Amino acid sequence: METDRPLDALNEARGHRVVVELKNKVQLIGKLKAFDIHINTVLDDAEEWENGTMKRKLGKAFIRGDTIILISPA
Amino acid sequence: METDRPLDALNEARGHRVVVELKNKVQLIGKLKAFDIHINTVLDDAEEWENGTMKRKLGKAFIRGDTIILISPA
Amino acid sequence: METDRPLDALNEARGHRVVVELKNKVQLIGKLKAFDIHINTVLDDAEEWENGTMKRKLGKAFIRGDTIILISPA
Amino acid sequence: METDRPLDALNEARGHRVVVELKNKVQLIGKLKAFDIHINTVLDDAEEWENGTMKRKLGKAFIRGDTIILISPA
Amino acid sequence: METDRPLDALNEARGHRVVVELKNKVQLIGKLKAFDIHINTVLDDAEEWENGTMKRKLGKAFIRGDTIILISPA
Amino acid sequence: METDRPLDALNEARGHRVVVELKNKVQLIGKLKAFDIHINTVLDDAEEWENGTMKRKLGKAFIRGDTIILISPA
Amino acid sequence: METDRPLDALNEARGHRVVVELKNKVQLIGKLKAFDIHINTVLDDAEEWENGTMKRKLGKAFIRGDTIILISPA
Repeated sequence: METDRPLDALNEARGHRVVVELKNKVQLIGKLKAFDIHINTVLDDAEEWENGTMKRKLGKAFIRGDTIILISPA
Repeated sequence: METDRPLDALNEARGHRVVVELKNKVQLIGKLKAFDIHINTVLDDAEEWENGTMKRKLGKAFIRGDTIILISPA
Repeated sequence: METDRPLDALNEARGHRVVVELKNKVQLIGKLKAFDIHINTVLDDAEEWENGTMKRKLGKAFIRGDTIILISPA
Repeated sequence: METDRPLDALNEARGHRVVVELKNKVQLIGKLKAFDIHINTVLDDAEEWENGTMKRKLGKAFIRGDTIILISPA
Repeated sequence: METDRPLDALNEARGHRVVVELKNKVQLIGKLKAFDIHINTVLDDAEEWENGTMKRKLGKAFIRGDTIILISPA
Repeated sequence: METDRPLDALNEARGHRVVVELKNKVQLIGKLKAFDIHINTVLDDAEEWENGTMKRKLGKAFIRGDTIILISPA
Repeated sequence: METDRPLDALNEARGHRVVVELKNKVQLIGKLKAFDIHINTVLDDAEEWENGTMKRKLGKAFIRGDTIILISPA
């Protein structure tokens, strides 16, 4: 069965580690816990990365969708 | 029981201290009092932090949702 | 009785002096007269502050909601 | 009778001279002729001011609401 | 009969020459042909001006509304 | 018969070569194939121009409407 | 049969390699897997390019639509 809606691709990634790229050049890496149609996204065990360096461990992170550029597998 | 909608994660954080990261590089730290679907958020005992320094105590703070990047546990 | 919607917090502040922080780094301080779901806000006896200095007295000020970062007690 | 919706405050200002502050640091001063829920606004006898200097007389000016920061009495 | 909605003012300008100021500091001057509720606007015989200099003749120009700051008589 | 809605003007341009000016200062020149109410636009035989120089041939190009400033005849 | 809606053009590109230009000057090149009316887009075998250099292989990439400028054939 094909996935041809964008949110299906996010749904398949649920429970897996993803990289969330933000408009402010930060990357958040964590396990994809939840998302909605606005692409508001929750990561578990989230880490904040910038320029290839891990800056902080955030734990659970709620990310407002409009700040996201892309989400890809970690 | 699983939480798989992003606002469920915020709901679990209600009453706990959170860090709210804003688009203007300010962090607000306080107790999560309320939020809505726009992610308009109210913190109690809010403090304004910038570059690791506490700048001001705000008391109760209403934050317009569109200025928020992410919310994580303090 | 608890307030758990963000606009309830603004409603409690009605009639009291608040600080409205704007995206252009200006602070408006005045008595909260009115607001709506877009956070369009009206202050009475509003003053414009920048970098800790009072710049102008505005009298009644209508502020378009999308320019607001946060509202807290003055 | 109280006005407690933001647009009521604009309605009271109708026919009077107001300052409209724009996101591009320009001020438009003129007589408030009309506005709508998007805060699209029409001024009569509008003047464009920047840094305390009058730059141009515009006559009637239609201002798109999303470019407005605030409106106060002139 | 009074006009007290902002689009009424645009409607009166239809067929007349107007200046459309854009967020990118360009001015478009032409005859107002059409507009809609988003302020998407069509000018006939449009010219592009910047810093008081005419840069280009565009002929008919369709302008996306969200790029417009204000519209006034030419 | 008059055209007095902005999209009518785009409709007349369908099949003709147009210049699409983008917010990032790029111009796309091509044959207008399709558009919708968001001004999402498709050009055939599109070329990317910047500062009067042709940079790339794109072939068919789908342009997201919110990135467009204006559309005029090429 | 003609395609005259913009999303028809994207639909024809489904399964083919495309270039997705982002507002942050990054190009994503990959096979177009899915898109929706917000232009949220999924690429398979996506690569991130900047200034003519391939920076990273992303695998499957979900791109939030509002960050996209244009989509054209690779």
